[in-house]
Amino acid sequence: MAFSKPAIPKGTRDFLPVETAKRNYIFDTIRQVYHLYGFRQIETPAMEMLSTLMGKYGDEGDKLLFKIQNSGDYLSGVTDEELVSRDTLKLAFKFCGKGLRYDLTVPFARYVAMHRDHIVFPFKRYQIQPVWRADRPQKGRYREFYQCDADVIGSDSLLNEIELIQIIDTTFHRLGIRVCIKINNRKILSGIAEIIGEAGKITDMTTAIDKLDKIGVENVNKELSDKGISPAAIAQLQPLIQLGGTNAGKLDTLEKMLTESPTGLKGIEECKYILSLLENLHLKNEIELDLTLARGLNYYTGAIFEVKALDAQIGSVAGGGRYDNLTSMFGMPDVSGVGISFGADRIYDVLNQLNLYPRKAINDTQLLFVNFGEKEMIYSLPILSQLRAAGIHTEIFPDTVKIKKQLSYANDKNIPYVAIVGEDEIKINKVTLKNMLTGKQVLVNPAELTHILTSQSSESEI
Amino acid sequence: MAFSKPAIPKGTRDFLPVETAKRNYIFDTIRQVYHLYGFRQIETPAMEMLSTLMGKYGDEGDKLLFKIQNSGDYLSGVTDEELVSRDTLKLAFKFCGKGLRYDLTVPFARYVAMHRDHIVFPFKRYQIQPVWRADRPQKGRYREFYQCDADVIGSDSLLNEIELIQIIDTTFHRLGIRVCIKINNRKILSGIAEIIGEAGKITDMTTAIDKLDKIGVENVNKELSDKGISPAAIAQLQPLIQLGGTNAGKLDTLEKMLTESPTGLKGIEECKYILSLLENLHLKNEIELDLTLARGLNYYTGAIFEVKALDAQIGSVAGGGRYDNLTSMFGMPDVSGVGISFGADRIYDVLNQLNLYPRKAINDTQLLFVNFGEKEMIYSLPILSQLRAAGIHTEIFPDTVKIKKQLSYANDKNIPYVAIVGEDEIKINKVTLKNMLTGKQVLVNPAELTHILTSQSSESEI
Repeated sequence: MAFSKPAIPKGTRDFLPVETAKRNYIFDTIRQVYHLYGFRQIETPAMEMLSTLMGKYGDEGDKLLFKIQNSGDYLSGVTDEELVSRDTLKLAFKFCGKGLRYDLTVPFARYVAMHRDHIVFPFKRYQIQPVWRADRPQKGRYREFYQCDADVIGSDSLLNEIELIQIIDTTFHRLGIRVCIKINNRKILSGIAEIIGEAGKITDMTTAIDKLDKIGVENVNKELSDKGISPAAIAQLQPLIQLGGTNAGKLDTLEKMLTESPTGLKGIEECKYILSLLENLHLKNEIELDLTLARGLNYYTGAIFEVKALDAQIGSVAGGGRYDNLTSMFGMPDVSGVGISFGADRIYDVLNQLNLYPRKAINDTQLLFVNFGEKEMIYSLPILSQLRAAGIHTEIFPDTVKIKKQLSYANDKNIPYVAIVGEDEIKINKVTLKNMLTGKQVLVNPAELTHILTSQSSESEI
Repeated sequence: MAFSKPAIPKGTRDFLPVETAKRNYIFDTIRQVYHLYGFRQIETPAMEMLSTLMGKYGDEGDKLLFKIQNSGDYLSGVTDEELVSRDTLKLAFKFCGKGLRYDLTVPFARYVAMHRDHIVFPFKRYQIQPVWRADRPQKGRYREFYQCDADVIGSDSLLNEIELIQIIDTTFHRLGIRVCIKINNRKILSGIAEIIGEAGKITDMTTAIDKLDKIGVENVNKELSDKGISPAAIAQLQPLIQLGGTNAGKLDTLEKMLTESPTGLKGIEECKYILSLLENLHLKNEIELDLTLARGLNYYTGAIFEVKALDAQIGSVAGGGRYDNLTSMFGMPDVSGVGISFGADRIYDVLNQLNLYPRKAINDTQLLFVNFGEKEMIYSLPILSQLRAAGIHTEIFPDTVKIKKQLSYANDKNIPYVAIVGEDEIKINKVTLKNMLTGKQVLVNPAELTHILTSQSSESEI
């Protein structure tokens, strides 16, 4: 076999054991909360037909799809003329019939349309799987990353929005991350665009407003003007863009302003309903109506959410909203849905920055038996079996090497306890248990060993 | 957006919620046992450099790799002459620099070589991720499937073989599948080839012997003869091929036969050692020395394992063995390793056939609140919060539709309990709890509701 210098494709990552454990802690926390609310997991293949993916993410998105070359003679059916024409995009479709999924949303829409006869509606599903994008890799942006989506399909009840906000609230509370949950409503934005006489420019308007945090009021106004929105309309927008105060206060102001827009009033009503019901449910985190929140405009039709971590400088850590007709692109019209997505990579960074991983999530093996030799090992193995039967993660060092090396293995793996078994211990049927943090040692029999390691108070006992 | 008829690439699968839950039950069971023995999870990217993958699986394997087209102008650097030459394999390497991983072993070897400075050796790692092969799809063979591998790298102690066999034993015991764990040793096979004077034909010999179960003795002998193995050698092989009796008896017979082969004797010694230590550890399943077991010959160097389900007609459900020099292809020689792999898809089929899934693994939501309307829903929501805080998976039907539809939702999702809240219940601050299986109903207060659903004996109480 030829020697290859080991490397991985740019923008992709290997995960070491500690990193994988931390990531699993995040995924498991999200998963558990999803299950508490009755969401069930599905999985779709990494590869989708290119025809499923193309045209769903705009021209730019089409270019960012990873395309998979057809097996066998991928050049068959392509003439020499076509080949030397070098039309890379056209030829790509001849060479490649499949691509890696770009997000979980389009595959999910495809899934719902394809399996509609086997799905129980309203369909509450979650999905935690990697997606791939041929983006230019940069800090915090990867070509392979996980998405953690939950959606309810086939129900237009606002109760779904309420429960998804509860899920966000509970998940971040369990992770120990303080957040602000921002909500807005696409219908309110439409109402505003109507009222200021720029209904046709809602996309330009919200794209500009969405940048308020980043570029400031003046630049937002300049962008609005550049996009051809009239000075009068821009003037009308000012109080709204920087609307302060309580959620109720904001809604009152809006209501007065949007009396002439049935769409706008509907958005306000939805917001009021969601906020009033949540009031009785005592969220652990604050919820804020934020009119500058826009999110994927061509997509969302009702409530939209975005979550900001309060103690870390980082983009949004979760988001979502109500959409209609997601499945219509696959021949299944008039199905309303609402969904959220957690940004696992950003949550990972926040937990690292704030050092919030519980020790239990990272450590794994609780006890290492050192290996002095054949006799000691044979004495130890049945004890290891007992411990494992009691659910204790236990190892024995496989080789008979210097004890220093074995102890440094325990330290490198963050194993908190070591069991030392020598001739003396065997004679009296005991084990020396050493706490690797305090250095304290106790002589115990195997039953006591199990007890100490299963008991919650193990650290105080030794 | 254009309408596309929903479809997925051939050989790939969507997993519905029940299927995903069943698969998670298998993965979680394997995962838990791996952790009991101190194995830690890692993850590698779906895409590897083609240079990492090529040449590692033979010519046939190279063809079965899914290749990913380079982003941007993948035709640059290719002349018109090269294009019209239509050398599909050569051009594939020009168009594609990356491929989807074909197994977890080569990426793992690449990973160990690449991260050797950050790895604690002996390195006990497990990995549960999908792999992709452009095989012709057929019943039970997919183009995307999961592998569940555990390996110990950097220790040649036979204790690793022993623990991996314990892991196999415990995992199938927990899954409720009775198995026979077959072991053999590549060194014994080498010894036999030596003794019969056909050391150079060990591959032909074992490939033929390996088929004994499928094609019978006569055809095995014919194949041996066809491969140029002498009649004398074939005669010598007969007692070995069909060696019966206990493991100890087999080893005694072998020992007498292989006295002249130091390699063969070493293999026997290793087998004896492993079997004798396992005897004290009381495996739940039988372990059998099977000389017809060969497995990936160019790969394994010591012990080899294969696991057969006793109550289902299906290929092996797990396997593995000792290998040397896995990482040498990435410039890291002289590292011994031993590993196992569970066949999740086959285990899935066996559990289905034998109906062995625990109800808890498949069911998820425990309680559904029916939704009679606004007032009832508002009364119910805080009770749902309490139940969820107690860890009970609880839903409320999001829409106010006919109760029949809501109950049929509960039945379709296999939800065992339904909570009915109407005006009468609200008046006396109670909830009617209905057991969907028995139809029995009780009137309880919210605290009792939590108690009934958390208690183990819930089914006997109502």
